Amino acid sequence: MLRKIRMGMIGGGRGAFIGGVHRMAAALDGEIELVCGAFSSDPERSRLSGADLYLDKSRIYDSYEQMILAEKNLPADIRMDLVAIVTPNHLHFAPSKLALENGFHVVCDKPLCFDLAEANDLVNIVNSKDQIFAMSHNYTGYPMVKQARAMIQNNEIGIIRRVVVSYPQGWLSTPLENIDQKQAAWRTDPTKAGIAGAMGDIGTHAHNLMEYITGLRVTHVCADVNKVVAGRLLDDDVNVLLKFDNKASGILTASQISAGEENDLTIKIYGENGGLQWSQMQPNTLIVKWLERSEQHYRTGVGDLYPSAVAATRLPAGHPEGYLEAFANVYKNVAKCIQAKLDGRKADLLYTDYPNVQDGLRGMQFVHKVIESGNSEEKWLAM
Amino acid sequence: MLRKIRMGMIGGGRGAFIGGVHRMAAALDGEIELVCGAFSSDPERSRLSGADLYLDKSRIYDSYEQMILAEKNLPADIRMDLVAIVTPNHLHFAPSKLALENGFHVVCDKPLCFDLAEANDLVNIVNSKDQIFAMSHNYTGYPMVKQARAMIQNNEIGIIRRVVVSYPQGWLSTPLENIDQKQAAWRTDPTKAGIAGAMGDIGTHAHNLMEYITGLRVTHVCADVNKVVAGRLLDDDVNVLLKFDNKASGILTASQISAGEENDLTIKIYGENGGLQWSQMQPNTLIVKWLERSEQHYRTGVGDLYPSAVAATRLPAGHPEGYLEAFANVYKNVAKCIQAKLDGRKADLLYTDYPNVQDGLRGMQFVHKVIESGNSEEKWLAM
Amino acid sequence: MLRKIRMGMIGGGRGAFIGGVHRMAAALDGEIELVCGAFSSDPERSRLSGADLYLDKSRIYDSYEQMILAEKNLPADIRMDLVAIVTPNHLHFAPSKLALENGFHVVCDKPLCFDLAEANDLVNIVNSKDQIFAMSHNYTGYPMVKQARAMIQNNEIGIIRRVVVSYPQGWLSTPLENIDQKQAAWRTDPTKAGIAGAMGDIGTHAHNLMEYITGLRVTHVCADVNKVVAGRLLDDDVNVLLKFDNKASGILTASQISAGEENDLTIKIYGENGGLQWSQMQPNTLIVKWLERSEQHYRTGVGDLYPSAVAATRLPAGHPEGYLEAFANVYKNVAKCIQAKLDGRKADLLYTDYPNVQDGLRGMQFVHKVIESGNSEEKWLAM
Amino acid sequence: MLRKIRMGMIGGGRGAFIGGVHRMAAALDGEIELVCGAFSSDPERSRLSGADLYLDKSRIYDSYEQMILAEKNLPADIRMDLVAIVTPNHLHFAPSKLALENGFHVVCDKPLCFDLAEANDLVNIVNSKDQIFAMSHNYTGYPMVKQARAMIQNNEIGIIRRVVVSYPQGWLSTPLENIDQKQAAWRTDPTKAGIAGAMGDIGTHAHNLMEYITGLRVTHVCADVNKVVAGRLLDDDVNVLLKFDNKASGILTASQISAGEENDLTIKIYGENGGLQWSQMQPNTLIVKWLERSEQHYRTGVGDLYPSAVAATRLPAGHPEGYLEAFANVYKNVAKCIQAKLDGRKADLLYTDYPNVQDGLRGMQFVHKVIESGNSEEKWLAM
Repeated sequence: MLRKIRMGMIGGGRGAFIGGVHRMAAALDGEIELVCGAFSSDPERSRLSGADLYLDKSRIYDSYEQMILAEKNLPADIRMDLVAIVTPNHLHFAPSKLALENGFHVVCDKPLCFDLAEANDLVNIVNSKDQIFAMSHNYTGYPMVKQARAMIQNNEIGIIRRVVVSYPQGWLSTPLENIDQKQAAWRTDPTKAGIAGAMGDIGTHAHNLMEYITGLRVTHVCADVNKVVAGRLLDDDVNVLLKFDNKASGILTASQISAGEENDLTIKIYGENGGLQWSQMQPNTLIVKWLERSEQHYRTGVGDLYPSAVAATRLPAGHPEGYLEAFANVYKNVAKCIQAKLDGRKADLLYTDYPNVQDGLRGMQFVHKVIESGNSEEKWLAM
Repeated sequence: MLRKIRMGMIGGGRGAFIGGVHRMAAALDGEIELVCGAFSSDPERSRLSGADLYLDKSRIYDSYEQMILAEKNLPADIRMDLVAIVTPNHLHFAPSKLALENGFHVVCDKPLCFDLAEANDLVNIVNSKDQIFAMSHNYTGYPMVKQARAMIQNNEIGIIRRVVVSYPQGWLSTPLENIDQKQAAWRTDPTKAGIAGAMGDIGTHAHNLMEYITGLRVTHVCADVNKVVAGRLLDDDVNVLLKFDNKASGILTASQISAGEENDLTIKIYGENGGLQWSQMQPNTLIVKWLERSEQHYRTGVGDLYPSAVAATRLPAGHPEGYLEAFANVYKNVAKCIQAKLDGRKADLLYTDYPNVQDGLRGMQFVHKVIESGNSEEKWLAM
Repeated sequence: MLRKIRMGMIGGGRGAFIGGVHRMAAALDGEIELVCGAFSSDPERSRLSGADLYLDKSRIYDSYEQMILAEKNLPADIRMDLVAIVTPNHLHFAPSKLALENGFHVVCDKPLCFDLAEANDLVNIVNSKDQIFAMSHNYTGYPMVKQARAMIQNNEIGIIRRVVVSYPQGWLSTPLENIDQKQAAWRTDPTKAGIAGAMGDIGTHAHNLMEYITGLRVTHVCADVNKVVAGRLLDDDVNVLLKFDNKASGILTASQISAGEENDLTIKIYGENGGLQWSQMQPNTLIVKWLERSEQHYRTGVGDLYPSAVAATRLPAGHPEGYLEAFANVYKNVAKCIQAKLDGRKADLLYTDYPNVQDGLRGMQFVHKVIESGNSEEKWLAM
Repeated sequence: MLRKIRMGMIGGGRGAFIGGVHRMAAALDGEIELVCGAFSSDPERSRLSGADLYLDKSRIYDSYEQMILAEKNLPADIRMDLVAIVTPNHLHFAPSKLALENGFHVVCDKPLCFDLAEANDLVNIVNSKDQIFAMSHNYTGYPMVKQARAMIQNNEIGIIRRVVVSYPQGWLSTPLENIDQKQAAWRTDPTKAGIAGAMGDIGTHAHNLMEYITGLRVTHVCADVNKVVAGRLLDDDVNVLLKFDNKASGILTASQISAGEENDLTIKIYGENGGLQWSQMQPNTLIVKWLERSEQHYRTGVGDLYPSAVAATRLPAGHPEGYLEAFANVYKNVAKCIQAKLDGRKADLLYTDYPNVQDGLRGMQFVHKVIESGNSEEKWLAM
């Protein structure tokens, strides 16, 4: 019999940002129930955070190790199924490993790990286990992103020749990390974020979106990696020239000093016959500009769309679905796949479409190569 | 001690639309838990629907009467607190009345009732009780709608002179009611929807939004009420000239035969100094066009906004919040107000800002007057 | 042999607005040459204005009567062919009549005349002559307006059911006429503008655009006619419910107190199968929203367009054509038709597509009926 | 006494594109009169083209050399003042040189010359003469471009940190040059266009716009130069990483194989306090996104704008001005400067703001460096 999936959370205590997003995304469809958490490395903060969420005291833990071991020993009809890991980058690997080794499914925030070595290890661990390991490359959850991917898979715009993905934000235009802004602090701290700042934080989203939609793989990069704000230790503004495995060219930019920009992840993909354009801030529109015909605007919920786009849609046309709905599509798919496992069934292919550990590894490889290129005088580096 | 609010649902079984919306909206913030339901007048359908939602069998009921009475007899730490009524219009009054009389809070879908007589009765019942009665005029839940209202309350655009609200949809351009489309069938059936079709279904939203933002009250209407699709029994296309209590003029349109339109509720309000414009399909932007200055675009999460707008926002700027988030703001506020009651506190004014029974009555009065005007040869009717 | 058409101008001296527009529009395509003018009822101002335009002194006249008679007596290879009348409304009829009676072609600014009596007379005069009489309903000159008209003529959206045309401006939000602003002064003066203010100035454009694109004729109006600014003598804010000869319904609004609005003439036309939308401020896009298919955006110069749209286009796609280009299409067509006459040919049908005296008469009839309705307690007035 | 400026044209005969644009732009304001031309290297085509333009036969020439020498010998009150050179790139230098040496002012199409050597020579010639030499970098003629430039000159957005300029077109997505399309043919032919295709044709516009608005100078480039369409001899898709003289970073792209794109020149400039965004296809809006305030949309003709923006505007707000109006601003300024010279006055600074030979040289240097970088394995090349 089907049941709700039970989730525990690591990180995401008071003052955190992305933990709350994961909780809303997991709750939206009524398929997942938050049952426990280790919300902070500070036990007191963890307890307060768990109380805010109306959790049973007995299932608010002092540490993720404690949580994983305690939950493992709970009866099967109570025990959590799934761990959401929403900590800073340097705390992705160890809890993922422990959770997987103790039989739990994992949804981990991006980027995959602190560094490439961890990422490779984690891939091996995931591959040796039967559990689900998903990542929150949530932007691929939008219906119109799935429509774009399906259009390309069906060769609607012909061979891809040019890809432009840009991800400008402005919130790190000033040295926020110096005024105790928690989100800024760890993202600009090499001991927590790893070798990359903006590139790891948002560049990985841009890269993932690009490879997800196009099906292409980046083969070469030539990067200009900048630390614009005085005193900042990690990149906050990056421009990368790209070559793809089908010989297409491209550009990826990730900037957090684009003053005034909110969160404008935008992708434009040009094939022989037309171009696709999608912007995260207008997510329910997919513009198709044809070479010899009038422009088409695909809209969430309107007309004939591919099954993957339809499956990612909850509301009738014109009822805007946003960031949380796209994020929730990752969790919904994970929940459906866990339910299938509990049921001994194979999950529907529409549900297995969530970002996985290989996507995470690709992201880490890309970040490392871009940072290497930024430090190199060689023009093109292969990856 | 704070706890989650427990909700039961009346209506919203398999094949329904708005029930699922209410459930997602209620779930989003983790403040409300669905614990029981009478999802259909068909007990078997109710059972299947409840099972889809992973509810305990013992709390899936055959009828709303059974649910209300059974839940009343459950222990206080299990019993539902709140009933969501998501049935067609002719089934709003009786369950609301029964729920209120048995001590439950209510969130009722719009329009308030089947007719004006019921609406007046229900106002009296609500006024005689201490429980919360909220309505799902969800469009007022958007941050930029709250910003617009606060700007007008603070006289930023001067005395209002002109209001234009239009709500075009296209989904009833063909006689869907004849092909057994459930949503179309009851909305075009006078025995279920009442005297109005499009005017009751979406005109009430437009009217509520207009009075909510401007603080004005409509005093006179002159309506052109059309049944465009052959054989349709209720209006599907309505245009109304308006006069307001401050002498401003306006227009309201509600059309469900605007072929190709999705759900484009749009309002433009002109004061002495400038105009405000907001569109539900681009909900995170509030455009202010000033008489002598460059245009301003307020954006959810950007810069100085009024507290009511900030309180209605969950995500950083540029992470689009949509229809469900706005809808969830109604539920979040209701949950916070119930928690305050449980706690013996007065709720924060930010939380008491939800559509209430008076708003519902205004809507019914407006609908009735518009339909009357449609049948009248007199130009202006007072309301 | 083809030659440039020679134009004289009546009105449009220093301080005027629309005269300069006519001159730029007439000059753009190199088909028309300004050769003379009576630019003001003040001879000194006329002389200065003509000198600004580098005209030969001998052809700058003190009055339009002088100009028409003097030019008539010039040799045929020098004499003007065409008179542009760009005076306030009360000075349209007499110069038009005199010009026609002396053999000149006329382009007259809108509205056609001061009142309906003049308009009827002028129609008779035009009909009794062989000359061209064109009006500057310039908004019909846009390529995407012509595309919309052709789509409807070819039944692409099915029977029209609903038409919404709105024309908001904000420039008369304050009593500009009291501070000696020339454009405001005559437009709000019943002795110069006639019985209508905003309705005559911009409502006639909205009406003309609507009938031009749809091919429908308004049969009934129900109008709310307001004088919003204290002390204003003519309407500045008008809302009109409409019925058309095919039973479609509609709304027309013309407002000059919509503070902050620039010149946002917008039309939406809904047929059985889809809706067309066009906005003058984004003139190179025609949006088509289909009932069951993704949205199409026709763009000036892109893909297959109707010949009338192509003929109205000068530049490759993406090189924005604006107000003056649309206006120039009126002049270009008039020039081509005069050349055909000079040549003894029938003009190409693409060129005879300019606003004519019948369009002007329709506009006057509409304005008069709307103002009458504004003063009436009867709901619907037939026209 | 002021008079119209008399213009001759070199190139721009039947079948040409940009010649007609120059003629409309020159005619629009009534300051310039086309009096003669050598429209083609084929005398018969030149004659037919001149007849199309209603020119006197005696002033339609067989060659530009013939025209310059013949006009020089005409009386001063008849002789042309100004030559417009609208030939392919390889025919810019010689006619410019001859015109300048014979006392004529010149407006030359971009890019300046066939190669850098010619460009340097031409700078020397211009510098040694007293005549005006202007270039048709027409995109700087838009009011909102001038507003952006003035805002930066007045330090409104702080020190510039990042510049992104992109210029995608799609019209060369197929090998048009093989089907005898005249515009495609010469632009892809190294013997006529020079060493660059897209970079010379549109990249120079993007570069000029960027340096014009920001006041910055590019110091280093790192370019990916592609020939995407099989068999094409010159670049059709170029991406360039940039460094500026104030240490800012940037990207410039120029692509003519971005299938479906019309002519979407767009620039985004980020300073410490905010970002400016302008798109040629929505030219009357300048978006300013501030770091801590709501977004501002400057609009042509609305509110307080800098004098340079006001001077470039012809119409009231909301009457869209487009490509030809911006182009005409170059010609209007040139005409005003020539008039000042004829008058022995210094021209107003608002009028001397047209693209000049130094701008042309910068463009040639940039193009050459980009192409060099495309062939280089070195990452950054200084310029």
